[in-house]
Amino acid sequence: MRIAILPNSDEYLDQAVAAAGAEKVELAEAEALVWTSSAQNGFPEQLPDSIRWVQLKSAGIQPWIASGTVDEKRVWSAAVGAYSEDVAEHAVGLLIAMVRLFPRYARSVTWTKAETWSKVASLRGSRIAIIGCGSIGRAMIPVLTALGVEILAVNRSGRPVEGAVKTVTSEGLNSVLEEADHAVIAGASTPDTHYLIGQRQLELLGPEAYLINIARGDLLDPEALVQALRTGVIAGAGLDVTEPEPLPDDHTLWSLENVLVTPHVANPQGNMGPHFAKFVGENVELVRQGMPPRGQVDTARSY
Amino acid sequence: MRIAILPNSDEYLDQAVAAAGAEKVELAEAEALVWTSSAQNGFPEQLPDSIRWVQLKSAGIQPWIASGTVDEKRVWSAAVGAYSEDVAEHAVGLLIAMVRLFPRYARSVTWTKAETWSKVASLRGSRIAIIGCGSIGRAMIPVLTALGVEILAVNRSGRPVEGAVKTVTSEGLNSVLEEADHAVIAGASTPDTHYLIGQRQLELLGPEAYLINIARGDLLDPEALVQALRTGVIAGAGLDVTEPEPLPDDHTLWSLENVLVTPHVANPQGNMGPHFAKFVGENVELVRQGMPPRGQVDTARSY
Repeated sequence: MRIAILPNSDEYLDQAVAAAGAEKVELAEAEALVWTSSAQNGFPEQLPDSIRWVQLKSAGIQPWIASGTVDEKRVWSAAVGAYSEDVAEHAVGLLIAMVRLFPRYARSVTWTKAETWSKVASLRGSRIAIIGCGSIGRAMIPVLTALGVEILAVNRSGRPVEGAVKTVTSEGLNSVLEEADHAVIAGASTPDTHYLIGQRQLELLGPEAYLINIARGDLLDPEALVQALRTGVIAGAGLDVTEPEPLPDDHTLWSLENVLVTPHVANPQGNMGPHFAKFVGENVELVRQGMPPRGQVDTARSY
Repeated sequence: MRIAILPNSDEYLDQAVAAAGAEKVELAEAEALVWTSSAQNGFPEQLPDSIRWVQLKSAGIQPWIASGTVDEKRVWSAAVGAYSEDVAEHAVGLLIAMVRLFPRYARSVTWTKAETWSKVASLRGSRIAIIGCGSIGRAMIPVLTALGVEILAVNRSGRPVEGAVKTVTSEGLNSVLEEADHAVIAGASTPDTHYLIGQRQLELLGPEAYLINIARGDLLDPEALVQALRTGVIAGAGLDVTEPEPLPDDHTLWSLENVLVTPHVANPQGNMGPHFAKFVGENVELVRQGMPPRGQVDTARSY
């Protein structure tokens, strides 16, 4: 297979593609394109017809569908799952950090045990809803299970997720939120999941619940979230993604005691190159064998 | 068995003791005493000779040995292991929080992705030394293993810890610290472990390493720690215990960007009652069967 790597390759990618038996060539000679930027800037306006497969670097590629870049002339694949374990680790860290008041302690300059100890909780024995339980959610399950947590999974198909005590479709979302102690938003951003979690869902989670979002900001209604955080509808939120993003300096979320915002860093930059390269190498082997690549985009489903 | 519960019992303890077949009585009539406070204040100056067993509430009972309260006339047991899973969860949370810069993000009021993303790391693929790998350390291992971490254990006997890739005694401490990416102090405070981690050990850990202490403050030389944190000898520290404790308001640790102090809350207050009661119930059954209680104090070893 002849493959173009644009706008820039790196040693990890060069090695992975070569090891998978592909040859790196210019775009005009290529059968496949690996696009190494998360952004659309500079993406070729018209792809040669010879390009049968395009591999994108992002896991969530809703903007690429919305812009019309993803076409029906060829196979497109997102890096779905390439970074899941790293993002899952971040989500577990946010869960523990929130139930154990780490953000408040980080902002404290005095020993507050007397005022705070009774408010510290553990995850052990709790039930956590994973909303959009795809590759990130599945990567969280072994860790949360080792922490003594029960998983309530929400996914598109309702097909039982291994390790979850219950799996429901979005029709069961509200009942699962009512049952859960805490929730993690881990699903894809699609027109169907826009503002999936709003005022009603936050009310169902309840005043002891922490909400984590490591997926995309637009799965969560930002006004309903701020209102819920201000009025104790939920206990707090740990957010690696926001709406809008980047979060502007004057946004209320920066000033709330019960919030931790991390600036879309769940997937550490230093790990991205090697993890993407490994994913691309595996996909090159699949495509060379005539199989669909992992993460193939389904434009009808928007992910 | 006739058992006194002082200074105060609670419903969990009353139920656990009754379920284990013991009868709650006054101290003068008792064969055993359960002391329900972590502090020594108010502990009977002289115990009746009829008391054959004393169960303390703390897991770490070095102050009880140092004060001479623990005598040789009867069996004493600490609540070793009663709270281990909760403390282990806190330790894992601190590890993830530190490598992912949660304390800095909690103090930030602006989107710092451009400056910080390259400094975020993951635990996955790292090697973590557990210094004093007893019940807390063993409770961490399944969780860290699920996170893709390798464990290097340091314990008193050198007897291999299940799930660790290597177990050494304190003679191997320095070589393990050199090999480890990060370290967790999880051992008992004893005369032998006083300032076990000092300047040399911090240097061996190195500038990318995060150090967690969820055991006791005096296992870690506080001056060497502050110096190491200030000068980049290690990357940072997550501390649930300090020396001195409580940490005074003017202490340098409150002002360092690479430090998170939680005020000795790893064991959530709301869980203590039920967890202690479960532990006591199990120990009552053991002692009634003529077996030693779990957590029996060995005054020669100071834990």
